[in-house]
Amino acid sequence: MRAAMMYGAGDVRTEHRPDPKIQQPTDAVVRTVLSCVCGSDLWPYRSLPATDTGRPMGHEFLGVVEETGSDVSGLKAGDLVVAPFTYCDNTCDYCAKGLHFSCRRGGRYGFDGVDGGQGEAVRVPQADGTLVKLPVDADSALLPSLLTLSDVMGTGHHGAVTAGVGRGDCVLVVGDGAVGLCAVIAAERLGAERIVLMGRHQARTDLGREFGATDVVAERGEEGVARVRELTGGDGVDKVIEAVGTRQTLQTALAAVVDGGTISRLGVPQYEEGPLGPSTIMRNITLTGGASPARAYIEELMPDVLDGVIAPGRVFDRSFTVDQAPDAYRAMADRRVLKSLITF
Amino acid sequence: MRAAMMYGAGDVRTEHRPDPKIQQPTDAVVRTVLSCVCGSDLWPYRSLPATDTGRPMGHEFLGVVEETGSDVSGLKAGDLVVAPFTYCDNTCDYCAKGLHFSCRRGGRYGFDGVDGGQGEAVRVPQADGTLVKLPVDADSALLPSLLTLSDVMGTGHHGAVTAGVGRGDCVLVVGDGAVGLCAVIAAERLGAERIVLMGRHQARTDLGREFGATDVVAERGEEGVARVRELTGGDGVDKVIEAVGTRQTLQTALAAVVDGGTISRLGVPQYEEGPLGPSTIMRNITLTGGASPARAYIEELMPDVLDGVIAPGRVFDRSFTVDQAPDAYRAMADRRVLKSLITF
Repeated sequence: MRAAMMYGAGDVRTEHRPDPKIQQPTDAVVRTVLSCVCGSDLWPYRSLPATDTGRPMGHEFLGVVEETGSDVSGLKAGDLVVAPFTYCDNTCDYCAKGLHFSCRRGGRYGFDGVDGGQGEAVRVPQADGTLVKLPVDADSALLPSLLTLSDVMGTGHHGAVTAGVGRGDCVLVVGDGAVGLCAVIAAERLGAERIVLMGRHQARTDLGREFGATDVVAERGEEGVARVRELTGGDGVDKVIEAVGTRQTLQTALAAVVDGGTISRLGVPQYEEGPLGPSTIMRNITLTGGASPARAYIEELMPDVLDGVIAPGRVFDRSFTVDQAPDAYRAMADRRVLKSLITF
Repeated sequence: MRAAMMYGAGDVRTEHRPDPKIQQPTDAVVRTVLSCVCGSDLWPYRSLPATDTGRPMGHEFLGVVEETGSDVSGLKAGDLVVAPFTYCDNTCDYCAKGLHFSCRRGGRYGFDGVDGGQGEAVRVPQADGTLVKLPVDADSALLPSLLTLSDVMGTGHHGAVTAGVGRGDCVLVVGDGAVGLCAVIAAERLGAERIVLMGRHQARTDLGREFGATDVVAERGEEGVARVRELTGGDGVDKVIEAVGTRQTLQTALAAVVDGGTISRLGVPQYEEGPLGPSTIMRNITLTGGASPARAYIEELMPDVLDGVIAPGRVFDRSFTVDQAPDAYRAMADRRVLKSLITF
């Protein structure tokens, strides 16, 4: 099969790799139909030290079950399925608490001998727990939106859920990347009254407005905070979904949130230390969020995708074949593309 | 009147000060019956730069209403009342959300011309919103426990509430000071099944056990974390109430909490920066807590004090007269006393 491999910063190659085979009775092999590049794939794309042994890339995919291990009972060859971005048994105590990212039998694609999602086929461990059947055909126009349940839409939703977004809230979404835009969808879906989207790429913020953003703030840093506070009568927003992950965006979130407010962090922090001094205590600020338990949210979000209530697949603004994976990365890294779809 | 004033680190003096008078129609003057020294008073006691103009000290007190302003309708001279540690109108939007510390008309004792609580009388702004009548006589044996509703018990309760402590939880309380011990009471009261108290002063941890701690860990740092993890089968505790405020205790909290767990910070941070890197995201850790809206909790906690269900007044292990205020501070700073009561 052909699959995208990363050999170091800026060095993605599509290569021939051995076809995956069932190794454990709980495995399934999935023939990939759609995959995509994640914002988090761009961090190694910018920083991975060069290596002779490439890393299989990708963790968002949907496809058709080709073969199942002897212990897999809920799936059969021919099923169209979506895979959350980590595999999990969906039965352990962590999964039961909605912490699928911490599953006791879970793990990540592309590591420990498991294929990446940006290849023609993937051996999926814990297939019964991980894979969710899609009630559409493989040529459905809904596939891109269903693919987002693998990660980006579930991550945006996790931000809104952990921030506690509810009816009437004023929510700030920091970042107009695909996660930020899905967070706008999620905040709107959970009843937020006002959604301020902070971003400076007009095509993206325009899509954000279509997704439900009521205001756009193009300014950054102190100027951006001043603008957000102005929009909220001076007090700041009830909830912030921080979908970038830099120190500056965290500081923006802290400065823009109301006393007693909540900040949900979704972006992988590009910092080790952050502001946690007395003012965060005096202001009763809550910092929450984290890696989304995407599996936990698929059943909740899928009906809205199927009914056309939400269309998160609109974040894909360009399609590449797996052979074009290097271009798919480059286009996203250069910010020419919001989110790259990969076809097979 | 006589009142405790601080002139710099280690320099507390009991002095004669002008008797407070009504200044605003919403004021009341309270003749103090009981006051005490707070752990947070020890930070300036260790670090306040020397000054010629002393700072009135104290923010926890109960007493008898002596006089009320013309707009005060809910109180009259002779009422025995407890004061939460900040004054507030109890009606603004922040107060309505349970954020009395951020009240729009609120403020702190000892600042902006308002008396401290460690004096014979206090002018209390926003008296109707701030003061809560006590249904006991001024010689009741319950007064020390009722005094804790002013701050320390409400603060421990805030830790348990914001950490989301509920039935069956395993809770770690870091710190065997008066706040930590009140957090043990609060966690037990909210249904925690297991309460691990981290502290090394046996008299204090013994009291913690009487308050409901099921386990005591005397070790600190990595050794303490290992011990807590051992007690919890390796996974860590569901909730942490961090009642110290050093960087080390925050790190202990982060290392001891289970994936998906919550840390509530009560201790005023003695740090500006803290660990907020990728692992806190990957593990879905929530950091919450802050300055307690003590006023918000008085009605909830008082019945349990009156019924003897909780006895937080046991944290006071020595009594001083206001003239002995310098000793009251020194004894606490030297850790000879857990919490100093001040009488008049």
